[in-house]
Amino acid sequence: MTTKSWVYGLEELPRVQRTAHTWDDVKALLGGKGANLAEMTRLGLPVPPGFTITTEACREYLKHDALPKALWAQVETALAKLEQRSGKHFGNPDNPLLVSCRSGAKFSMPGMMDTVLNIGLTPEVTLGLSKLSGDARFAWDSARRLVQMFGSVVMEVPQAAFEAVLTERRAQRGVDNDADLPAEDLEDITHRFKALVLAHAGRPFPEEPMAQLQLATEAVFRSWKGKRARDYRKAAGIPDDLGTAVNVVAMVFGNLGADSATGVATTRNVSTGEKALEGDYLLNAQGEDVVAGTRPTRPIASLTQDLPEVAQELFAIAKKLEAHYREVQDIEFTVERGKLWMLQTRDAKRTAQAAVRIAVDLVHERRITRKEAVQRVKPEHVDFYLHPQFDPEAVKAARAEGRLLAKGLNVSPGAATGRLCFDADEAVRLAKEKHDVVMIRAETKPDDVHGMLASKGIITSRGGRTSHAALVARQFGKPAVVGVMALEVDAEKREATVVHTRQVLTEGTEVSLDGTTGEIFLGALQTRQPSLDDPFLLELLGWADSFRQLKVYANADYPRDAERARALGAQGIGLCRTEHMFFETERLPLVQQLILAREPEERKALLEKLQPLQRADFAGLFRAMNGNPVTIRLIDPPLHEFLPRRETLIRDVAELETRARLGDGEGRVLADQLHQKQVLLLAVDSLHEENPMLGLRGVRLGIHMPELVIMQVKALFEAACDCVAEGVKVLPRVMIPLVAHANELEVEQTMLERVAKEVMDRRHTRVSYEFGTMIEIPRAALTADQIAQRAQFFSFGTNDLTQTTFGISRDDAETGFLSEYLEKGILPENPFASIDEDGVGKLMEMAVRLGRLTNAKLNVGICGEHGGDPKSIAFCHRIGLDSVSCSPFRVPVARLAAAHAALEGASSAVSDPLSTAQPTRRSRSVSRAA
Amino acid sequence: MTTKSWVYGLEELPRVQRTAHTWDDVKALLGGKGANLAEMTRLGLPVPPGFTITTEACREYLKHDALPKALWAQVETALAKLEQRSGKHFGNPDNPLLVSCRSGAKFSMPGMMDTVLNIGLTPEVTLGLSKLSGDARFAWDSARRLVQMFGSVVMEVPQAAFEAVLTERRAQRGVDNDADLPAEDLEDITHRFKALVLAHAGRPFPEEPMAQLQLATEAVFRSWKGKRARDYRKAAGIPDDLGTAVNVVAMVFGNLGADSATGVATTRNVSTGEKALEGDYLLNAQGEDVVAGTRPTRPIASLTQDLPEVAQELFAIAKKLEAHYREVQDIEFTVERGKLWMLQTRDAKRTAQAAVRIAVDLVHERRITRKEAVQRVKPEHVDFYLHPQFDPEAVKAARAEGRLLAKGLNVSPGAATGRLCFDADEAVRLAKEKHDVVMIRAETKPDDVHGMLASKGIITSRGGRTSHAALVARQFGKPAVVGVMALEVDAEKREATVVHTRQVLTEGTEVSLDGTTGEIFLGALQTRQPSLDDPFLLELLGWADSFRQLKVYANADYPRDAERARALGAQGIGLCRTEHMFFETERLPLVQQLILAREPEERKALLEKLQPLQRADFAGLFRAMNGNPVTIRLIDPPLHEFLPRRETLIRDVAELETRARLGDGEGRVLADQLHQKQVLLLAVDSLHEENPMLGLRGVRLGIHMPELVIMQVKALFEAACDCVAEGVKVLPRVMIPLVAHANELEVEQTMLERVAKEVMDRRHTRVSYEFGTMIEIPRAALTADQIAQRAQFFSFGTNDLTQTTFGISRDDAETGFLSEYLEKGILPENPFASIDEDGVGKLMEMAVRLGRLTNAKLNVGICGEHGGDPKSIAFCHRIGLDSVSCSPFRVPVARLAAAHAALEGASSAVSDPLSTAQPTRRSRSVSRAA
Repeated sequence: MTTKSWVYGLEELPRVQRTAHTWDDVKALLGGKGANLAEMTRLGLPVPPGFTITTEACREYLKHDALPKALWAQVETALAKLEQRSGKHFGNPDNPLLVSCRSGAKFSMPGMMDTVLNIGLTPEVTLGLSKLSGDARFAWDSARRLVQMFGSVVMEVPQAAFEAVLTERRAQRGVDNDADLPAEDLEDITHRFKALVLAHAGRPFPEEPMAQLQLATEAVFRSWKGKRARDYRKAAGIPDDLGTAVNVVAMVFGNLGADSATGVATTRNVSTGEKALEGDYLLNAQGEDVVAGTRPTRPIASLTQDLPEVAQELFAIAKKLEAHYREVQDIEFTVERGKLWMLQTRDAKRTAQAAVRIAVDLVHERRITRKEAVQRVKPEHVDFYLHPQFDPEAVKAARAEGRLLAKGLNVSPGAATGRLCFDADEAVRLAKEKHDVVMIRAETKPDDVHGMLASKGIITSRGGRTSHAALVARQFGKPAVVGVMALEVDAEKREATVVHTRQVLTEGTEVSLDGTTGEIFLGALQTRQPSLDDPFLLELLGWADSFRQLKVYANADYPRDAERARALGAQGIGLCRTEHMFFETERLPLVQQLILAREPEERKALLEKLQPLQRADFAGLFRAMNGNPVTIRLIDPPLHEFLPRRETLIRDVAELETRARLGDGEGRVLADQLHQKQVLLLAVDSLHEENPMLGLRGVRLGIHMPELVIMQVKALFEAACDCVAEGVKVLPRVMIPLVAHANELEVEQTMLERVAKEVMDRRHTRVSYEFGTMIEIPRAALTADQIAQRAQFFSFGTNDLTQTTFGISRDDAETGFLSEYLEKGILPENPFASIDEDGVGKLMEMAVRLGRLTNAKLNVGICGEHGGDPKSIAFCHRIGLDSVSCSPFRVPVARLAAAHAALEGASSAVSDPLSTAQPTRRSRSVSRAA
Repeated sequence: MTTKSWVYGLEELPRVQRTAHTWDDVKALLGGKGANLAEMTRLGLPVPPGFTITTEACREYLKHDALPKALWAQVETALAKLEQRSGKHFGNPDNPLLVSCRSGAKFSMPGMMDTVLNIGLTPEVTLGLSKLSGDARFAWDSARRLVQMFGSVVMEVPQAAFEAVLTERRAQRGVDNDADLPAEDLEDITHRFKALVLAHAGRPFPEEPMAQLQLATEAVFRSWKGKRARDYRKAAGIPDDLGTAVNVVAMVFGNLGADSATGVATTRNVSTGEKALEGDYLLNAQGEDVVAGTRPTRPIASLTQDLPEVAQELFAIAKKLEAHYREVQDIEFTVERGKLWMLQTRDAKRTAQAAVRIAVDLVHERRITRKEAVQRVKPEHVDFYLHPQFDPEAVKAARAEGRLLAKGLNVSPGAATGRLCFDADEAVRLAKEKHDVVMIRAETKPDDVHGMLASKGIITSRGGRTSHAALVARQFGKPAVVGVMALEVDAEKREATVVHTRQVLTEGTEVSLDGTTGEIFLGALQTRQPSLDDPFLLELLGWADSFRQLKVYANADYPRDAERARALGAQGIGLCRTEHMFFETERLPLVQQLILAREPEERKALLEKLQPLQRADFAGLFRAMNGNPVTIRLIDPPLHEFLPRRETLIRDVAELETRARLGDGEGRVLADQLHQKQVLLLAVDSLHEENPMLGLRGVRLGIHMPELVIMQVKALFEAACDCVAEGVKVLPRVMIPLVAHANELEVEQTMLERVAKEVMDRRHTRVSYEFGTMIEIPRAALTADQIAQRAQFFSFGTNDLTQTTFGISRDDAETGFLSEYLEKGILPENPFASIDEDGVGKLMEMAVRLGRLTNAKLNVGICGEHGGDPKSIAFCHRIGLDSVSCSPFRVPVARLAAAHAALEGASSAVSDPLSTAQPTRRSRSVSRAA
């Protein structure tokens, strides 16, 4: 039996691959950072020597609260090799080796876990380093940084304590920047930091290099379980049981003079997708300085002037890495006295537009296949793409009015308007009260993420394209503008000042930010729906269409919606809610009179007024969808929804009664008013139901009061005949809602098919039509075999089906116990957002299977809101639906999601880390359906 | 290929049995009447010769609207045989054969279909008969009857037209009775009847015997589809596609003089079950005269004096038939000039008490097994047995007060009070308006059945124990008193007169009738629950208990209910609705304060007041159920149910606001009142939900507001510990309602088990308890495997499960569209009365299967109202439930129904004709569950 390997040198990738067969396995074991460092080492790129302690070790550590037994001996061996490769020695003042100790999980969690740099610095080693580098300031600054990071990460001393010392010293010296503090001050500060550690932690700072390394390793392991990391994983959907690896790598220093530098870059522009290396660097600086945004960075192009040879090498490496990974890379590098070191490479995060353009470009460059391109763009990207943008006219006007406050870096596109808010907790609180919030900070930290998620948009006065704020905003699709130097943010006072005008923006001030242009305006700006003219997106969606099996329809109630939907790629209308037409201003009074009418004659007259209006509605839809199916749902909601609210009437009647009793007002007038209200209340009372969701609506209404649906079907078939005469190709589908028993459909459909036939006979026109039903009541799903004997199509109404399957009234619950359940984790996700596969989904699978048992040609679709949700679309694909229908704007999202769903079955190359949980679910689902 | 046989002679039973193997098959082919006539023939009893045209022929006729081709030739052959056996000839005036043509379906449908007697009488034959019988009156009366029956049945002449002629003639002659009309009149009437037929039908009465027979046969076939017959089948649950047979039998005449008679009898008393032949007969009369109740009948015992030899023979035959059929028989006989003829035998309909007593007696007489006895008593019988009876003290008082109006025959037991109503349609109308109705008629006809079903009780002034009114009342369990000679009923005037006092009872007068004693009282009488001391019933239920596999629990909220339930045989409490305790007068204010309380301290104080009350409640239940499980459901309804109605508060606030504005009343007082109501309205508003059925209740409430359920569980376990100390054996089951997701149970149960443990630890007492959940939301059934990981028992809440599975709010729907659906036949039965097996039942089957997959020892029961419904109990047995729970009074019903369910699986001897559809359903259900 061989001993378990807990540690691998960066040069040992082949040994890793003996047990970890796929790249995914390697990343799972070494973490993404460790795997990529090893891969770069294998490619012969200049990577400092180092080794990785595996995620397995982390999991063991977290399980037993102790490092695995054999681990430390392996670390010592690996360290010895590292010394050998670097030619330096850990703890040796004459030739000191310093190492960094960084976390690196399978999936990137930027800034979420801990890092300790400069491990190995003892007082003696610091002196030695000072001598060797000839730079006492550098040596003591390094020591100061070690104590500060170690103190905060390992020994849990508050950062603020360290910052206070620095602030005080800067004030004494009258300087703005730590870089301006002399070596003596830094030495003194180092000692004071150590005293702080002792005072806060009750233990001294360890002056033994191996002890430093071990404690740092354990602290990194522990940071996996920190609140920040857990919150992030929850938001990003990363499983909690993966653990993190620890990368121990020889330190290289970008702050050893003018021929040293540190920087970050992406191999393409991750905001626009343009094919050009993008990045920032700082001469004579350490890595965090670039990310922290505390000093103005230099654009990567300047490197050609500053360090031409390094620039040439770096650009070549960037190209090589992108070609190797077949994906845009996000790299970190340090130049130590003219020598380039690669510290990290990873797939770059990007904006939606960039994701689309990069995927399409890589296909044109023959780097990846169309299939891969489609798979690399997430439905969320397309969704975001379609978010409103500010109306250009409104922007022009705002500029003219002097409302442009400032401009910063456009790091995450989209338009957002909201009240300024200066801290995360407050942002969450306001968002809960349904306010739109724009969070503003000097810079953001992981502690702020919950506030960022609650905000509509994010502004920071510092930081660059790769700053924490920019990364998080892009990842979660929040419009963001960072590095807005023209704004001074004072979080304490809760105000921001526009530098050149001294205009003060207090908390609550309404601002608008444009993440696409980087502009920030005072007040709200009109937004508009973006056009889909982006040729990259159109090309990509075209490819997606060639892969998907699900048809994508739109839910559209009006011709203008239908036209828009068609332009967005809808292949028909999956749901037209006819009752929406009844709510229109000129029609509602007719509908109300109809409901209140006692005499058949009166009803008939009113229906005759409504019929031509409905006919025109339907004709518009048919014309817009020429050649594509148009699914029209007959009236669904309970009639009381068309009348005034019962509560209002009760109040009005009580008031009028009291006034009449007390003689307030002219008796005759009062009596008339009272009578009117009383009659109305009587009618509303007679329609009142304790649980209208479960009441007289849908097909029940059609059976109880047939005139209304007969009018609708007449209007529909008259419109169809009219359109046929015009040369329009009409494919109407009449959809009967809320069926629970096959007999309901039998009665209603038989009646309505007769009506349809009468119209067509009278007009001497044949229309190719279908009758079908919503499946939105559990019993309909359970008896789908019986219902399919009559229905030619099914359409899942998953909003209602979720309500009845869960026994939850959505309107009541989402602001009540449902959100409590989601907060407490009792429900893993909102079943009204994504289909509850175990419950509602099981009914859907049954319905599909039973329905097709009776009618093999049965068309099955979905028209609930879930029809536009990518996760739900994938589920619909798996259970064999023919189509999904969603709101017009979600049609492009659905097209892509449907393609993903189809490709997921055919391909095992899962590029999206978040979807790794899918295969298990899928196999279970398949066996369930079998 | 042999020709299909459409016709069988009564002597041809062996030939029938070549294709119809079981007795059930024989009845299906020949109808019950035909099969029994053939069987009596086989037994050598005196049955007039005849033949049966099969139900197959009927089905063919109804399908093609024409008699099957080969049929009439077979009838001619059979008729030839009949002539041979009777020695008479059809249509021969010198030796005429007359036949009756009667319907006879598989299941008895008394009076529902048509009969034509005296077929074969032409003018010549009538003269011949007159000569042969020496009785011209008899001959012309027979002819008159033939034309009248044929005219009405076959040629659809209104009965009223014939009656008018008779009435006129009686008036002319100054006689009350047709029997007093002389032969000349009857001859004349016969001619006038024929003229009526020609006038009404446009065709002459056929004077050709074979034509008469054929037209009568077809008319009888058609009568299967008549409205009356369809209504009856619907009420009795007889399938519509069986068809009826036609029995053509040689006429025998009970009206040929003093040595002729006709009568009916049952082999035991079908009201009480006593072992004694009961019956009525008339000398010199035709069969209908006895049933119609137009002449006072003689009790069967008198036959020994009137016709001693016939009596001896008849009594022997009755014994023989009962022994042969192993069941009480209902027989019809005619004596023609001293010769006894058996015209019919069938299993006798009986009252509940009689059914029980007869079944038990037959076991003691070793005629049937205990199993058969249990199977012969229907759950409905036991149900009826338990109906309220009048309080004996109230009866005594009513008698003393002179409120006893009259006494009649006690033909269908039970007590009923209601408004007098003189016709069926009015009875239905009033019943729909929720009035209790007692229908009163001189006599009832099939046309009246819908009114009888709508009534609480039935009174007729004429008729006997076997009258139409008596038969129908017994069959449908309506209390009835018939033959109340002391009442004169005038349906035209809508009044009844008490003969000896001339007191007039107008429509709407409230009366009470006791079907057990035959007494009728003015006004309402106090009723009381019957005791279950009937030793026959106790013995039978004891046998039932030995057969059943389902445990029977009771739904009981109070100790007094629990005690009653136990006395009725409950083996535990399946459902205690704890919230009912909260509604009690002294507690409701506490509960209201609790809901309105803002401060935790205030809530705590209120809960501490409630806790001892609940503890006492629970202790009472444990004591009453000593040794049996007590299932306690934690609070279920939404909190607003404990507060005043929102509508009322809105009205009150509006009124007070208006008064305050107009200065009506003392400002301070008004402001205070207004404030109070406003605060209350605010609280109610905050709890308001659009669909409370689907809202914050059940486990959701427990999670949202844990204090309340924690208090309940504390009280429960304290009570349990108290009872253990007293030596009571307690088996508490804590039931958590409305679970939809396994996590809800996980959270709630974990919390409450900790509370339980704390109590038991503090009291140093171990209680053997279980935690479980209601399955009343579709999702719970669909994910029962997950839920069973925590739950130790399931209890189906089929009321709620039906609501959510159907998407129907019961309270709203049962008075609305649901009753419309039942009327229109869209739903075959009310799913809240009997489990909807295709939908709700499918979910239940899934839940049982999935739950036991996880936890093989899972206890599964039902505690919705369906738990007391025999059909639903049978379903629960089939899907493998462990128990049913129902209201205390239904416990005996459930015990018997559970035994039936168990025996149904083990036995193929199905005695109840209505259950023949079951095997199919069962096998389907089994395959579904597999």
